[in-house]
Amino acid sequence: MKLSQRAIDTQESPIRKLAGVANEAKSRGVQIYHLNIGQPDIATPDIYYKNINEYAGKVLAYGPSDGIPELKTAMVKYFSNYGISLKNEHIVIATGGSEAISFAFNVIGDPGDEVIIPEPFYTNYNGYASISGLKIVPVETLAENGFHLPPIEEIEKKITPKTKAILINSPNNPTGTVFSKEEIAGLGELARKHDLYLLADEVYKEFTYDGEKHFSILELEGLEDRVIVMDSISKRYSACGARIGAVISRNREIIQAILKFAQARLCPPTLEQIGAVGAYELPMNFFTDILAEYQKRRDILFEILTSNKEIVLQKPKGAFYIMAKLPVNDSDDFARWMLSDFQDNGESVMVAPGAGFYSTPGKGKQEIRMAYVLETAKLKRAGEILLKALEQYKNR
Amino acid sequence: MKLSQRAIDTQESPIRKLAGVANEAKSRGVQIYHLNIGQPDIATPDIYYKNINEYAGKVLAYGPSDGIPELKTAMVKYFSNYGISLKNEHIVIATGGSEAISFAFNVIGDPGDEVIIPEPFYTNYNGYASISGLKIVPVETLAENGFHLPPIEEIEKKITPKTKAILINSPNNPTGTVFSKEEIAGLGELARKHDLYLLADEVYKEFTYDGEKHFSILELEGLEDRVIVMDSISKRYSACGARIGAVISRNREIIQAILKFAQARLCPPTLEQIGAVGAYELPMNFFTDILAEYQKRRDILFEILTSNKEIVLQKPKGAFYIMAKLPVNDSDDFARWMLSDFQDNGESVMVAPGAGFYSTPGKGKQEIRMAYVLETAKLKRAGEILLKALEQYKNR
Repeated sequence: MKLSQRAIDTQESPIRKLAGVANEAKSRGVQIYHLNIGQPDIATPDIYYKNINEYAGKVLAYGPSDGIPELKTAMVKYFSNYGISLKNEHIVIATGGSEAISFAFNVIGDPGDEVIIPEPFYTNYNGYASISGLKIVPVETLAENGFHLPPIEEIEKKITPKTKAILINSPNNPTGTVFSKEEIAGLGELARKHDLYLLADEVYKEFTYDGEKHFSILELEGLEDRVIVMDSISKRYSACGARIGAVISRNREIIQAILKFAQARLCPPTLEQIGAVGAYELPMNFFTDILAEYQKRRDILFEILTSNKEIVLQKPKGAFYIMAKLPVNDSDDFARWMLSDFQDNGESVMVAPGAGFYSTPGKGKQEIRMAYVLETAKLKRAGEILLKALEQYKNR
Repeated sequence: MKLSQRAIDTQESPIRKLAGVANEAKSRGVQIYHLNIGQPDIATPDIYYKNINEYAGKVLAYGPSDGIPELKTAMVKYFSNYGISLKNEHIVIATGGSEAISFAFNVIGDPGDEVIIPEPFYTNYNGYASISGLKIVPVETLAENGFHLPPIEEIEKKITPKTKAILINSPNNPTGTVFSKEEIAGLGELARKHDLYLLADEVYKEFTYDGEKHFSILELEGLEDRVIVMDSISKRYSACGARIGAVISRNREIIQAILKFAQARLCPPTLEQIGAVGAYELPMNFFTDILAEYQKRRDILFEILTSNKEIVLQKPKGAFYIMAKLPVNDSDDFARWMLSDFQDNGESVMVAPGAGFYSTPGKGKQEIRMAYVLETAKLKRAGEILLKALEQYKNR
């Protein structure tokens, strides 16, 4: 009795795979600061819980496969604040951004087909590519260049007859990079020229700093048929446990096909959608304080890390992650060691090893991803612990 | 720009595909009785909502990828009432029974591999087989035989080098058949002999009538490594909109592999799991009145349908469906016509056409599936409307 090849090929989540070692550390009484996972500590809006608590239905029934209309309407209104004009029929509500990725991957290609993605990238693209049989073709981006795109010719070289799509994630997880309008328009031109889909994961849309603005692929003109956005409320409204996301496309065929996948899983969770309606109806100034808080956190973590001249990083402009290159040979081993063998005054830090954010074997082995999702005092302490750990690891 | 082949191959849900026609009928003022979907009208237990409303967390955070431990513990206790001994580590909480199917299909085989399923079967196996690239190899069962299994040799003939698993759904959707201990043990022997997995969808476990008892593949001895159960609270606790299910296996490798898929989608919805804990903690007599009600409904619908001697059906022993063969050539056309062209005193009925429950082309074209999920007065009226529609359809 053998497991499927895709089960063998699917990687363990680099964000979650050290959970066992972390739990052991906790059972020894060590307090762990979690920089490993993009789980914001910002409160989920009260209206989210209020909406759910006011649900008066007796039977928690199946909802529509494409999501409840109230949520789509609230999303359309939200996007109009960015000058992006959508209709309800352009949206399929998904069970989390994860399902949105899964839907998009399954609709653009078949096993063996290729999707081009700047590397490093959100680790779960690897998981979903394995499950759907798509091959990720990475495009190298460099810390030294702020993880921005290489010249468009470099990307064009990656296109083969098997290529179905280019995927961009901006603001980026794990790098924090916000891609410019010009970079994204360049990818759009490439998609048009080579008859490809253009996919974007825009779940960190709000999270930009230093006056930087997010440019959405939904704003590209003349490419409406090629554009598919994968979205989620997890970060936007600090509701990771809700599992509410969406696929957005103005291509009717795409939406119809995704609806068939959506029907197979019947519907997204009903109460969580009702909560999400309230979140999307919040005024846009809801984000103001949150962004100020994240920008402060980014600055604190960046300052601590740059105090060690052996750490290579650039100041990210978005999301809430820093990808840094450490003076270690194997960041997986280092991350594990921080949990199993190190503590500073009864405390340690959990980070995500970098290799899982790459599909190119051997890459990212010196890098770690840190999520600055802790309040400033804790974040400062976590950064200090990390520097101490690094010192002790070198000298062990 | 083409869609993927799997997007083209994935069928529209036969349960949901007439939704548009039904909505048009409703907009004309026609009241529709929904026999098309297994959406119980039984109230979701109060404790489900109460647990959710008492959630005091500020941040709706990611939960564990394999589900919250409280829910697993409550499930283990529930299964012990059936003499089935499980541990928390045998369970991965899924986002609905749908995701449980998806996890199981992805772990047992790769594109091109085969899974043997008695036909007719739950239509969404078709959808998930298309998405995961598995080929369903149907085993014919007949209305005349109460949709029970053919001799084991007939099933054995279907096994090829590509066969990875046999899947049984008992009590069955769409037929209502409850497979006997002997039938299931026979499949177990076949799985052992040919080194296959044995999968069971047991979401209707409680729903058996006339003293019939459900036999679980988890009760098969010596086959622990081969057995994978797909489960859900949707029907058990009338919580279809919750999207809480589970994959259960005592095979550690299977659980570890499924956990990797589970990590890719991060976690099931948190609040809905908290609600489900309360449901699973209910005493087992919670089901007594519900089962009596369903048995009564089955009897009413069965009696009405058998009053027309041209309708072929047997009295089902479980679940809440009746699969009946009608004196029509194309039940899809008939179902659509009932919504678009027929009404009786401003009312009509929606049913699920049979063909979608088969993978063999051309089969089930005379059959429809009805879910007896309406209170008795409504159900009676729906049955009468169906008979009238049938008469008028013949004479149109």
